[in-house]
Amino acid sequence: MRTTYCGLVSEALMGQTVTLCGWVNRRRDHGGVIFVDLRDREGYVQVVCDPDRPEMFATAEDLRNEFCIQIKGLVRARPAGTTNDTIQSGKIEILCQELTVLNPSVTPPFQLDDENLSETTRLTHRVLDLRRPYMQKNLMLRYRVAMEVRKFLDAKGFIDIETPMLGKSTPEGARDYLVPSRVHDGHFFALPQSPQLFKQLLMVAGYDRYYQITKCFRDEDLRADRQPEFTQIDIETSFLTEEDIRAMFQDMIVTVFKNTLGVDLGEFPVMTYQEAARRFGSDKPDLRVNLEFTELTDVMGDVDFKVFSAAANAKGGRVVALRVPGGAKEGTGLSRGEIDGYTEFVKIYGAKGLAYIKVNELAKGREGLQSPIVKNIHDKALQEVLTRTGAQDGDLLFFGADKEKVVNDAIGALRIKIGHSEFGKKSGLFESRWAPLWVVDFPMFEFDEEAQRYTAVHHPFTAPKDGHEDWMVTAPEKCISKGYDMVLNGWEMGGGSVRIHRADVQQKVFDALKISAEEAQQKFGFLLDALQYGAPPHGGLAFGLDRIVTLMTGAESIRDVIAFPKTQRAQDLLTQAPAPVDEKQLRELHIRLRNSAAAA
Amino acid sequence: MRTTYCGLVSEALMGQTVTLCGWVNRRRDHGGVIFVDLRDREGYVQVVCDPDRPEMFATAEDLRNEFCIQIKGLVRARPAGTTNDTIQSGKIEILCQELTVLNPSVTPPFQLDDENLSETTRLTHRVLDLRRPYMQKNLMLRYRVAMEVRKFLDAKGFIDIETPMLGKSTPEGARDYLVPSRVHDGHFFALPQSPQLFKQLLMVAGYDRYYQITKCFRDEDLRADRQPEFTQIDIETSFLTEEDIRAMFQDMIVTVFKNTLGVDLGEFPVMTYQEAARRFGSDKPDLRVNLEFTELTDVMGDVDFKVFSAAANAKGGRVVALRVPGGAKEGTGLSRGEIDGYTEFVKIYGAKGLAYIKVNELAKGREGLQSPIVKNIHDKALQEVLTRTGAQDGDLLFFGADKEKVVNDAIGALRIKIGHSEFGKKSGLFESRWAPLWVVDFPMFEFDEEAQRYTAVHHPFTAPKDGHEDWMVTAPEKCISKGYDMVLNGWEMGGGSVRIHRADVQQKVFDALKISAEEAQQKFGFLLDALQYGAPPHGGLAFGLDRIVTLMTGAESIRDVIAFPKTQRAQDLLTQAPAPVDEKQLRELHIRLRNSAAAA
Repeated sequence: MRTTYCGLVSEALMGQTVTLCGWVNRRRDHGGVIFVDLRDREGYVQVVCDPDRPEMFATAEDLRNEFCIQIKGLVRARPAGTTNDTIQSGKIEILCQELTVLNPSVTPPFQLDDENLSETTRLTHRVLDLRRPYMQKNLMLRYRVAMEVRKFLDAKGFIDIETPMLGKSTPEGARDYLVPSRVHDGHFFALPQSPQLFKQLLMVAGYDRYYQITKCFRDEDLRADRQPEFTQIDIETSFLTEEDIRAMFQDMIVTVFKNTLGVDLGEFPVMTYQEAARRFGSDKPDLRVNLEFTELTDVMGDVDFKVFSAAANAKGGRVVALRVPGGAKEGTGLSRGEIDGYTEFVKIYGAKGLAYIKVNELAKGREGLQSPIVKNIHDKALQEVLTRTGAQDGDLLFFGADKEKVVNDAIGALRIKIGHSEFGKKSGLFESRWAPLWVVDFPMFEFDEEAQRYTAVHHPFTAPKDGHEDWMVTAPEKCISKGYDMVLNGWEMGGGSVRIHRADVQQKVFDALKISAEEAQQKFGFLLDALQYGAPPHGGLAFGLDRIVTLMTGAESIRDVIAFPKTQRAQDLLTQAPAPVDEKQLRELHIRLRNSAAAA
Repeated sequence: MRTTYCGLVSEALMGQTVTLCGWVNRRRDHGGVIFVDLRDREGYVQVVCDPDRPEMFATAEDLRNEFCIQIKGLVRARPAGTTNDTIQSGKIEILCQELTVLNPSVTPPFQLDDENLSETTRLTHRVLDLRRPYMQKNLMLRYRVAMEVRKFLDAKGFIDIETPMLGKSTPEGARDYLVPSRVHDGHFFALPQSPQLFKQLLMVAGYDRYYQITKCFRDEDLRADRQPEFTQIDIETSFLTEEDIRAMFQDMIVTVFKNTLGVDLGEFPVMTYQEAARRFGSDKPDLRVNLEFTELTDVMGDVDFKVFSAAANAKGGRVVALRVPGGAKEGTGLSRGEIDGYTEFVKIYGAKGLAYIKVNELAKGREGLQSPIVKNIHDKALQEVLTRTGAQDGDLLFFGADKEKVVNDAIGALRIKIGHSEFGKKSGLFESRWAPLWVVDFPMFEFDEEAQRYTAVHHPFTAPKDGHEDWMVTAPEKCISKGYDMVLNGWEMGGGSVRIHRADVQQKVFDALKISAEEAQQKFGFLLDALQYGAPPHGGLAFGLDRIVTLMTGAESIRDVIAFPKTQRAQDLLTQAPAPVDEKQLRELHIRLRNSAAAA
């Protein structure tokens, strides 16, 4: 029905007759001639309808936006001065010879180029929203990313093997989506949170290199960057070391960025979890922000300012400064109102306040420092603050003092907030670049104060560093794992680990986590069983495809890179799912509603 | 940890030192030397452990089947007379220099090369079952097929776009798997039976060419070739005609077979639904079987044999013969017992019996025909039977007379059964070849006697042939659709249609199906709505990946091409899913069990 795409017509076809199909993006009448911008997924082309073909012209006069039409015409140069360099077809136009309306359109509820649509409008009329070049570009990039991943993995001998969607509920981690069984009364399947155990089983089964781009499910309350169903690039390999795996998948991501965006991510820095926490208060630091923590815990133990001394002396307490260069400069620095705003902001993360020192003039000593707290900090400590932060005139020093987690979260978030602010960008605190890194050497366990037991930082199948397995029972907090996360611009793109391949080591982890043998057998029996039959050394990782593409497109929301996403209330506004179902269906599944009025 | 795969070591590496990882397939002690067949996913290699390296030799002595080991050694020629031409590494062996046990194995519950394992054993110990080269070959072929499909579609501009797994229940067709919503009390998601509506929406949204290799779900009682979750190669395109679409996807399947099996499927015959039913009693005829129906309805109206005359005179009745060349030959033909067996067999399909005539000697006239029924068939009809079937001495003629559907099903199944039997194969009634074809021109509707209304033969979004839309209300039985099925060796590999792209035509189909405007709006409102906005002409199809790979591998069951399949009772024997869940989980989902003892 056509010879090429609208968006691909160029000077190369000059003088030729083409047939095109597409949608009327805009119709203009100008000097007795009708101009139609015809659109398809590849772009636009200008079609000119002259009145000297009256029948065709009459049809053209009736065209409205979003009519689906077919045209046949001659490719010719646009008149001088009317070319458009921003589109591929900008130097040419089509002189229309034949015009057929394939399907008319009623008037759309909004203009496709309206950039101020509410998300509710966009998701309710998703089909029209998906016609917008912005969405088409996003979804086409998403496809290219997935395909580049497949090509890369295929060349490395990875095999896509499908794992079940109808699996078993393992009540830990996030909440499962359940699927009642009709055949087995009172039994339920669960949709997978990840194919973790199956991919390990495939390694034990000798498939050597596995991947899958697959849906995973978590029934959690949704944050901006979460969806009930999301897509994971899931990978596992046998007989590679931690370093081999990192090198291979760094190469994969570098290749994908190069082949889709033309961006060279270069070599990724490798940073330990400990260093990331120390310098940035985060295990996914945004390295585009040129601000770092200064450690002060060791110097604040004996100051009069109780907030600092209490945190410095408490077990697990931390005191840090965040030096903001130029933050105290008259006129260009942070205003009183901004500082108050940041004080409120850090409270979200559990901080009780936000102490600061404005470094007005170092030469004046204490006189040159403007701060509500400085009088309660003795000379030696104050000198350490200034020396360690390298403070200069005009700098602003923020302080965090609390439990380590609160300090890291609050001052870590403040660091990002300031870096991304207008002030930060103007002051050179933010570099506009791609900033990837690996974060490695995660602890195996963290102590859960509430439950009074250790929990796994990655998951309980993560291998310890060689030699660390003996500490698992005696000193779990000392165990470092072979886990790794890939971070880009402060987002976790993916993560994984070398797995435990020996049943005895796996048992030690369960012991450290106080998972009883019975519980382990009931939940993971099939994995423990499999490890007994010559399981190979193996490891892998999983990337969040939605997130990667969101980062690559610069989209504001993950929902802009998913064709049919759910709202933050986990609803599909287009099809109105979820919805009530027939009583007969429930009966067949051996369930009933608790609240019989609910489905009314 | 290795330099190549075990199965890929060949003479090309002669004289080189290689490092390999794999599993001990077998260990033999022979003449003071230990031979280890080392296995990985690519195949086997023979490793020779000489006692002149005592430490290595001692480790080798402890090796048992399924130990996972790493070896380093020299590639050398096997001694003359010990080569094995059936494997890639059959001309060489590895002289072991270093040997490391990466992980020992307990004794497996069965030998991997045992070919008589029950399916229960295999699925319970699926990880070991998956180690068998048979399963590895199947799953690797499955991957290659999927990847070849992706490459083909990528080159044609198709884009993989993910559609939701959590969708809306549409209670028609098969039974849905439901997923209770936690956020919306009394509401449920449904897992998709196919992405049909979403792919049409993507065409309306202008994505032009879509595909997805995706899981679909049907909660049906399972037959041998069905699974609760199965994988569909789902495709949709805009602006192509029925013939364009068939040509493109014939090309795709031909390319896949060529690039994976090296098989050339050639040009596919195109057969109308009507012809397939007339000649083979099936809409997916196995053309490898050289047997055809002979139509006799028109000649049996006045015979004394009531079974024939009643069927011939009834509305929707049919009488046919199936001529089996050589079936009555003394010694080599069908035995009395076999004929009795077939008589029982056709009853499965609703036939009440199986009339037959043995054509012993045509020259003797009626004397030469041996049959319980021939005396009740008058000369003229008998002559027609012999002429139309082209019966020869030694042939056996089977008859079917009943409602058309019963005749088609029963005699169609008999045709396959005889064709595939030992007798059929010996008698040249079965050609061992790939026999693809397209079946086209399906009726739009069939009359459901029970419900006393028309139902859609494909689905209600299938377009009628041009001009047929006007019959949809006046004479639905005359409407032919733009539907098509691709059949291979009697299996439906895939099927699809050109879709309705105009809202007014879609409305006529709903009218013909007696779907009220309200019901249509409630179930498919979002599609009807979308069709109003300049929906493009579009169509597509879906292939069953599991089935295609089953056909290609010659596997006995679809379960042999799926890594972790469910049993026919819809259970995963490896992980024991489905399983009871916590009461807390049910409470969060606002449901309770009907039978509270069920989950005990």
